[in-house]
Amino acid sequence: MSTADARRVIATVCLSGTLEDKLAAAAAAGFDGVEIFENDLITSAASPAEIRRRCADLGLTVDLYQPFRDFEAVPPDVLRANLRRAERKFDVMEQLGADLVLVCSTVSPGAVDDDELAAEQLRLLAERAAARGMRVAYEALAWGRFVNTYDHSWRIVRRADHPALGLCLDSFHVLSRGSDPALICTIPGEKLFFLQLADAPRLDMDVLQWSRHHRLFPGQGSFDLPTFVGNVLSTGYAGPLSLEVFNDVFRQADPVPAAVDAMRSLRLLEEQLGMPVAAPAPELGGCAFAELAVDEIASSRLADALTALGFSLTGKHRSKPVQLWEQGGARVLLNASSSTSDSAAIGALAAESADPGRSAERADAMGAPILPRSRGPEEANLASVAAPDGTEVFFCDTESWLSDFPDAGSVGSNFRQNWNPASPAIGLTGIDHVALTQPFDHFDEATLFYRSVLGLEPEPVVEYAAPFGMVRSRAVLDPSGTVRIALTGTLVRRGEWAPAVRDPQHIAFTCEDVLAAARTLRERGAPVLRIPDNYYDDLDARLELDPRLLAELRANSVLYDRDENGEYLHLFTELFGSRIFFELVQRIGGYAGYGVPNAPVRMAAHRRQRLAAIDG
Amino acid sequence: MSTADARRVIATVCLSGTLEDKLAAAAAAGFDGVEIFENDLITSAASPAEIRRRCADLGLTVDLYQPFRDFEAVPPDVLRANLRRAERKFDVMEQLGADLVLVCSTVSPGAVDDDELAAEQLRLLAERAAARGMRVAYEALAWGRFVNTYDHSWRIVRRADHPALGLCLDSFHVLSRGSDPALICTIPGEKLFFLQLADAPRLDMDVLQWSRHHRLFPGQGSFDLPTFVGNVLSTGYAGPLSLEVFNDVFRQADPVPAAVDAMRSLRLLEEQLGMPVAAPAPELGGCAFAELAVDEIASSRLADALTALGFSLTGKHRSKPVQLWEQGGARVLLNASSSTSDSAAIGALAAESADPGRSAERADAMGAPILPRSRGPEEANLASVAAPDGTEVFFCDTESWLSDFPDAGSVGSNFRQNWNPASPAIGLTGIDHVALTQPFDHFDEATLFYRSVLGLEPEPVVEYAAPFGMVRSRAVLDPSGTVRIALTGTLVRRGEWAPAVRDPQHIAFTCEDVLAAARTLRERGAPVLRIPDNYYDDLDARLELDPRLLAELRANSVLYDRDENGEYLHLFTELFGSRIFFELVQRIGGYAGYGVPNAPVRMAAHRRQRLAAIDG
Repeated sequence: MSTADARRVIATVCLSGTLEDKLAAAAAAGFDGVEIFENDLITSAASPAEIRRRCADLGLTVDLYQPFRDFEAVPPDVLRANLRRAERKFDVMEQLGADLVLVCSTVSPGAVDDDELAAEQLRLLAERAAARGMRVAYEALAWGRFVNTYDHSWRIVRRADHPALGLCLDSFHVLSRGSDPALICTIPGEKLFFLQLADAPRLDMDVLQWSRHHRLFPGQGSFDLPTFVGNVLSTGYAGPLSLEVFNDVFRQADPVPAAVDAMRSLRLLEEQLGMPVAAPAPELGGCAFAELAVDEIASSRLADALTALGFSLTGKHRSKPVQLWEQGGARVLLNASSSTSDSAAIGALAAESADPGRSAERADAMGAPILPRSRGPEEANLASVAAPDGTEVFFCDTESWLSDFPDAGSVGSNFRQNWNPASPAIGLTGIDHVALTQPFDHFDEATLFYRSVLGLEPEPVVEYAAPFGMVRSRAVLDPSGTVRIALTGTLVRRGEWAPAVRDPQHIAFTCEDVLAAARTLRERGAPVLRIPDNYYDDLDARLELDPRLLAELRANSVLYDRDENGEYLHLFTELFGSRIFFELVQRIGGYAGYGVPNAPVRMAAHRRQRLAAIDG
Repeated sequence: MSTADARRVIATVCLSGTLEDKLAAAAAAGFDGVEIFENDLITSAASPAEIRRRCADLGLTVDLYQPFRDFEAVPPDVLRANLRRAERKFDVMEQLGADLVLVCSTVSPGAVDDDELAAEQLRLLAERAAARGMRVAYEALAWGRFVNTYDHSWRIVRRADHPALGLCLDSFHVLSRGSDPALICTIPGEKLFFLQLADAPRLDMDVLQWSRHHRLFPGQGSFDLPTFVGNVLSTGYAGPLSLEVFNDVFRQADPVPAAVDAMRSLRLLEEQLGMPVAAPAPELGGCAFAELAVDEIASSRLADALTALGFSLTGKHRSKPVQLWEQGGARVLLNASSSTSDSAAIGALAAESADPGRSAERADAMGAPILPRSRGPEEANLASVAAPDGTEVFFCDTESWLSDFPDAGSVGSNFRQNWNPASPAIGLTGIDHVALTQPFDHFDEATLFYRSVLGLEPEPVVEYAAPFGMVRSRAVLDPSGTVRIALTGTLVRRGEWAPAVRDPQHIAFTCEDVLAAARTLRERGAPVLRIPDNYYDDLDARLELDPRLLAELRANSVLYDRDENGEYLHLFTELFGSRIFFELVQRIGGYAGYGVPNAPVRMAAHRRQRLAAIDG
């Protein structure tokens, strides 16, 4: 099976809104068809025939009607009512132009544990369906009363032995129960009528609740979907790849970006299956720059702060009000041309790519279209795309874009000193990571965006308690760890009472020696964030650090963490504007984290800084 | 033990904010003391001694310092480090003025399963504590590696046999595991050093995740706390009742109302334990009236709508711009004096009380202070309190407050006809229920408010999928079902994309014959909400209703539900303003619900009405 054959379908239940909203969003994202979820139809004022026309107008097929529940293994009077119910639904399907119905294994207390009876009654249903040119796909719900594994549903379908009765496989139902997906390969492809895909985080909870609230699009969770789907395709299955994701957040998020996200998940999955939609992501070589969108006041404060941190102003853009600040390999742009509702915010990131053109093509294929950009005649052709939080992500090689800042390098140190009264460098060598608070509805989308577009791999989600609520954090990074983005967000969307910093963002610079740098910053009176004594007392109690080290950390407001592979020394600056700050980071040994245990300390300290600013 | 003895304490971890925010909120709500959670102290810039002074200034004692983790049953070198760690924490406690530390049963992979070793090491710790005038409370975490039941922790404490070592019992750890709380009675009271209280909904999930995210204040969940606490008190336990609730929502909600809610939960619990803080809630006799706060435009539209529904304008308030509309026992006030940001909203409800004065006293004792109210010399003395969503709740007897509307009744039908061109009544007899969308952060608080203040009992929480997200709903009602309030809210706080009606509210009137009423309304051209055919087709498929009944329902946009005890016929009006509508309700037999399966149909229909209004 090649990509060209794989029809991409989405269940309307994945998206928020009325049926009309959902269909429009699915079509706009490029889906070929939809599964129509019964409740979406029932609440609609459009007749099934009207919905059929709407779909046709949008270029969507109706691939499945679902769910039909609690049909099989029932006493005769219930069977009669169930067949009547089925005929009514076949009426609806006829008008909808759907010829496949999903029948879920029963959860009814009135059903009996009798495979033969179940098969016999499903065969009856298949006969009724066939008489109307329709087919039935039987699915084992993971919480089905008697039938809750796919091999059990397959035994029943085989026993029923009717051409209009086949299986629906749903990755969630199979993988949530830990069933071995290898047996799928033994099922004839023509008996697999439908394939539903969902990912999920690994959770230890009731499987129905897990399924109903926490499903994710492929690539956002922990399931091994490539193996699962690979097995299905190996049978000769020729139906669509269809997404069926129940998720509390997606259910109330804007369906238009949610559908784009869904489509991206299928493209990444196809790539993992060896059906690539684009060339692989080129190798990355670090974060070339981070750009801050600033207003006039923030621009001057940030220039002061960068100066205090030992950065030099090394260039100005040819045609735009953009300054280039450098220290070692760390580069920050201050862009006064962007409009931002905050006084300062991270407007853009640049990933150094081995092949920027190919990176851009891949982004486009992954549903992240290249942003339009005004460019002077001699200026570098920098392609960029918009991340889910609006951050512009550039693909570049440093050589070429630096030429847009003609003074950089060419004028030499005299130039620098003219603009920028000397503050010697403090040993910053690059950007370790950039931390971006994600919009609540787009946290999982962001993971998938960076994974599919840039080829960054997600690390596990970390949750922690902070002064103003629970926070989750997930880093994405390239295989060699040169580009790291720490995505954070709240577990529960913030309400009115959240007096801390809203949607903080920061740039963490790699520093050769954070303690030495901190001493210099202290002498300069740089705006380093003051960390309270209580933190160091606890550090001492917990980790029994060398007293001299502890004293040094305490005196310089440097924070400390360690894991099994190494140590992490870091310090934060105060806030500039309402959400931007910097971090200096020193990784010793193989420390792989981001100092998460210290984040609440930093948050409370920034809150104090804000309160003091208000009081003062 | 009497109420006067029971000191009321709250763990700082229950509340959002910095330590300073938390202490202020706890003191304002009337708590006697706090458990200081270590992380709250570590992130604070105030020294432990300063926190001690702050607490003293606020009238708070520091009853517990916690948690001290992973202490016991370790190899000698770890023991040495753990004792060092403990001494450092004792230093902190000394400055804080805390003499009790909570030690949680170990979860460390380095610990061993050896009760004797655990007891020996805990005894060592107790000796160190005693040397400094301190004590140790040992608690079995429900997910402790070896010790995870309270009887196991008690065996270890007994074996250690040191006067400075006792138990901490936490209702969550005991009840989440289904431990039998009866054995508590066998523990000597003087060995119970501390009692922590949390309620929780019954969830089938990993107990650590359950504990960390979903605890509730007593009376908000499903645990039998009165029995649990009763057993503890029967031992002679003389320590405080202390709340320790980890909850994702409370962690980021305004701590001031959250602390009031917490205090209310203890007062209700004390009442359930036979230590009443107020007289019991007087018997209720129905919803005397519902009051709509309206602007001028909404006032006229609602007058038209009430007229169409067969209400009569029967009075005007003596001194305020308030109209009384009546039909049977159903009474609606239109109040043009309240300020409301919506064109129309439910401003007040009145519960008919057998003893309004006593209801008011009870409300005050339950932390719902009587609202100030301007009143003319001859006007009824109506006491009211504010519910968590701001709705004013009155306690009244109808006789007396109706006298504030002097025209009512006294002028007779001529009066009515003058104001209100006749639309005959349609058989409404009262208010069946009032449905109020709750602010996201206050859903559980609302349950507890109505439970404690009015004596309404909460029904189970119902969750359902609606077009714009998952919704939860929970009704509270008095024992005879005369006052019913349906509280609804979203599972996930709404974001920007929610084009449906925001925070809808409605009044459901009891109707003798909804179908007959619906026919009349249709003739009158009343603004009845149009229900789509798809709904009736599904109803037919599912329930196989009598075809004549089905046709009648369909023709009149009447919705239908049934449960094991009876049937529910209901219809909705269109929206008036941005959030208000009415429902007509007929309960046949013992139907106990609120037509929840039909709610999504109503929501989509209201969305269409809004869109049509925008288009038109």
